[in-house]
Amino acid sequence: MDRHRVLPIPSRAGHGDVRRNNLQVVLRHLSVVGPDSRAGIAARAGLTPSTVSRLVGELIQLGLVREAGVDASLPPRRTGRPATRLELDGRHVLALGAEVNVDYIAVLGTDVAGRELHDTRLPFDAVAAGPRRSAEALAALCEQALRSIVAAADAPVTIAGLTVAVPGLVDVARGVVTEAPNLHWTGFPFGDTLARQPGMAQQPVNVVNDANLGALAEYRVGSHAGVPNLVYVTGEAGIGGGVIAGGQPLLGSHGHGGEIGHMNVDPAGPRCGCGRRGCWEALIGLGALLRAASTGGSHRADPQITSPEAKVAAVAGQAETGDSRTLAALNDLGHWVGVGAANLVNLFDPQAIILGGYFRLIARWILPPAREAMRAGVLAPGAGGCELTPSALGFTAAARGGTLHVIDQVMSDPARLAQPSNAQTRS
Amino acid sequence: MDRHRVLPIPSRAGHGDVRRNNLQVVLRHLSVVGPDSRAGIAARAGLTPSTVSRLVGELIQLGLVREAGVDASLPPRRTGRPATRLELDGRHVLALGAEVNVDYIAVLGTDVAGRELHDTRLPFDAVAAGPRRSAEALAALCEQALRSIVAAADAPVTIAGLTVAVPGLVDVARGVVTEAPNLHWTGFPFGDTLARQPGMAQQPVNVVNDANLGALAEYRVGSHAGVPNLVYVTGEAGIGGGVIAGGQPLLGSHGHGGEIGHMNVDPAGPRCGCGRRGCWEALIGLGALLRAASTGGSHRADPQITSPEAKVAAVAGQAETGDSRTLAALNDLGHWVGVGAANLVNLFDPQAIILGGYFRLIARWILPPAREAMRAGVLAPGAGGCELTPSALGFTAAARGGTLHVIDQVMSDPARLAQPSNAQTRS
Repeated sequence: MDRHRVLPIPSRAGHGDVRRNNLQVVLRHLSVVGPDSRAGIAARAGLTPSTVSRLVGELIQLGLVREAGVDASLPPRRTGRPATRLELDGRHVLALGAEVNVDYIAVLGTDVAGRELHDTRLPFDAVAAGPRRSAEALAALCEQALRSIVAAADAPVTIAGLTVAVPGLVDVARGVVTEAPNLHWTGFPFGDTLARQPGMAQQPVNVVNDANLGALAEYRVGSHAGVPNLVYVTGEAGIGGGVIAGGQPLLGSHGHGGEIGHMNVDPAGPRCGCGRRGCWEALIGLGALLRAASTGGSHRADPQITSPEAKVAAVAGQAETGDSRTLAALNDLGHWVGVGAANLVNLFDPQAIILGGYFRLIARWILPPAREAMRAGVLAPGAGGCELTPSALGFTAAARGGTLHVIDQVMSDPARLAQPSNAQTRS
Repeated sequence: MDRHRVLPIPSRAGHGDVRRNNLQVVLRHLSVVGPDSRAGIAARAGLTPSTVSRLVGELIQLGLVREAGVDASLPPRRTGRPATRLELDGRHVLALGAEVNVDYIAVLGTDVAGRELHDTRLPFDAVAAGPRRSAEALAALCEQALRSIVAAADAPVTIAGLTVAVPGLVDVARGVVTEAPNLHWTGFPFGDTLARQPGMAQQPVNVVNDANLGALAEYRVGSHAGVPNLVYVTGEAGIGGGVIAGGQPLLGSHGHGGEIGHMNVDPAGPRCGCGRRGCWEALIGLGALLRAASTGGSHRADPQITSPEAKVAAVAGQAETGDSRTLAALNDLGHWVGVGAANLVNLFDPQAIILGGYFRLIARWILPPAREAMRAGVLAPGAGGCELTPSALGFTAAARGGTLHVIDQVMSDPARLAQPSNAQTRS
């Protein structure tokens, strides 16, 4: 036996360049410790004062750090004069998150400090439009968002990038949608197509699975922010999953981890959009609800496109009136939510399962049967201590996650803002 | 919105003591870089030569490092004389891994360098014996293993610890078996009970879920060692799972992650040992196979305890003769293996799913239908690129994982060997 294999396998240390790493160190220091002086950063980070001065100068130039006056509470400079207080900025660095889903497109803009600047969602039939026309429509929506943000800004704005959420398997490195069953897209280079649209020139575009972005949003800014083990369940025409395990996104070997919608929970169940039978999605997706509650047949077939909220609001309205067919449909759907949720607890042992999208609008009817089925199906006592709860972010989770994805890229490599191909300044 | 929450949540840095950390740094250096001189370690680890000399002295004392002559290929000492070559030792530091399962107990001993020194497995009815008598029997087996290892050793042996694999939910911090459905144990302090047995005095005892230890063994010394995303499936009376995600064990919030045996795959399926219906375990556990292949009814009811291998060998023998009922049972079992495996691929996107325990003995019959069902059930094309394969470690995986668990504890905190309550020396 080879002795080296018995020992822990070391994680490959990133051999990124020192400057990039140091810029990140300074940003993280200000984000974790809070405002500080140049000398304070140097002492804590183990960098020389001159290196810190140079790095801070660069970050100020990039709009990520600002000087906020002198502060007598900070350690004074060698000259004895009070130190200048540095704090995170980012008010003029813009992160765009977008989403293409079966029945809508959406764009959300924040600055890198996290302030929301813009939020639009439009009903859109992405299935009928196909990937190319969807990219065109989304680019137009982004262009419009940028125009309105720039118009409202009091100074030139740097655009850090755009991350688009898509409901399906995505090859993130290449920006290719490998398989999006509900969109009927296969192997489409959505990232490149989007980047070639007018107004998107030179914008760094990422394409990421919608549920993974939703989970990122929940983990960072949702009602369970910071909970290190959680599962986010998208509630759209399709059901996707994003898993945070031990504080890290569970991506798997191709970034396809968390495809919980196609977990088989009933071999005798209904046909799924993916062609299989008994997928969780076929039992708890928006289509399943609309069919069961008989609001006029499949939502896809509805010739007049309305927002998913409007469709679900109609179901909720029927439930309010005590309509027995609707209440039975909601009860049944809740049961299946709980059966699948129990599987997720047995597999991931999360502190919380967060139901996104449309589930929030029908939570009061589905949660009681869902929690009962979950308790019954979890091996550990007391449902494994896992909370089953609706998302407070609702339909905006994925686009919000897109902005956070861009912010993470900026924080881990601030210098990318300085590359002309990686950022665009509009004034 | 609180800007700090938008930024990445920093992982809490371990504030362990510097000496412990430095000992670990030196050990890791020798494990990753290979043999080196004191000066070489100091240069690479950024420690002073005198600190390294002190640390190396301590590690030699603990039996974890040894001097292996002078080596002209290493950078010479300041005096100009060739440097002394240091290498990992561990030949006289002993790690014990053990397992209690439904129908056997086992002990495996290795040194910290990974050489196998002892391996015993005995048929044992842990259900009839109950947890207390199981602890007694296991302690006796460990005592016997220690005696034979010590008798064969050419120098005094330090015992680093014992980690026991149990098929069920385990509170690892307290050594309590929370819920082991197939053993019918609930809330039993197995670690403390074992530690109080004669011959186990002062031995550090850990209790860990068997599948998590099996996954550790596969990830470290199995045929897929180093593959960062893999799922290990135990094949015993019960079916458990251990998941490695992104090179890290997926433990979840209570260490209960990976309970794949109680994933519900067929609500209309057979009753499971846990009382539920349609768990994966009820369809592919050893009991399911023995019942379906009609080798004389439930293996639990068999008054004469035989090893699981003997029972499965009988089934394989029937299949060899072309017995149609047996072949149909194996085909059916293979199908359900694949249905559950497809769920695991959709959820974890692993490079490999490794079937442990008894599956190896019937692999040639179950793998074709299993792979077919897996391909059919995975959303990503080509079964998501995941390999479904029998374990080369077989029934020894969990106990082997136990030894690796002890070795990891030694490597991350070598000083624990020096504490009298944490190690025992036998000569």
